[in-house]
Amino acid sequence: MGSGQKEAAPGPAENTIFVGKKPPMNYVLAVVTQFNNGARSVKIKARGSAISRAVDVAEISRNRFVTGARVDAIVISSEELPNEDGTRSKVSSIEITLAR
Amino acid sequence: MGSGQKEAAPGPAENTIFVGKKPPMNYVLAVVTQFNNGARSVKIKARGSAISRAVDVAEISRNRFVTGARVDAIVISSEELPNEDGTRSKVSSIEITLAR
Repeated sequence: MGSGQKEAAPGPAENTIFVGKKPPMNYVLAVVTQFNNGARSVKIKARGSAISRAVDVAEISRNRFVTGARVDAIVISSEELPNEDGTRSKVSSIEITLAR
Repeated sequence: MGSGQKEAAPGPAENTIFVGKKPPMNYVLAVVTQFNNGARSVKIKARGSAISRAVDVAEISRNRFVTGARVDAIVISSEELPNEDGTRSKVSSIEITLAR
């Protein structure tokens, strides 16, 4: 009784879509599917030159297919990745959270 | 007299850098110059495939050159632009605000 009841945590494996080099609509379909399966929020992640495509995916998804969704958060950061020759390069990344 | 005194507005022409197809360091230099000239915040804008570069510019600026700066806001949106043949295309855009 009383105020102790908590809602279930959303779980560690969130609904995340990694955007790469495929056409944007492939990823839009993945985002739409997540929302249609009941997700309240979907994260769209990308690195390097795929960042532009991730923004396209977020905009197409929320403007055309998941019209109740809004941009909940956008985080940019830098990651250091190993090159083929053993050196390391910094690459930018983005994480866009859509929520409804 | 009394409470009527307002602070001066920041002015319509804010410190905005438009990122295009040049190398990232060109734009980083522009951002650093704005901060060195006393700006408290700088906006980095880009459209389409230049969005990835804008994120690079923001990350390089704040990690290497303007170390007191943080990402204050990121806004993504869609703009409709005319093509050469008279049709119109939607293109994504980003606006990253760095502040210190």
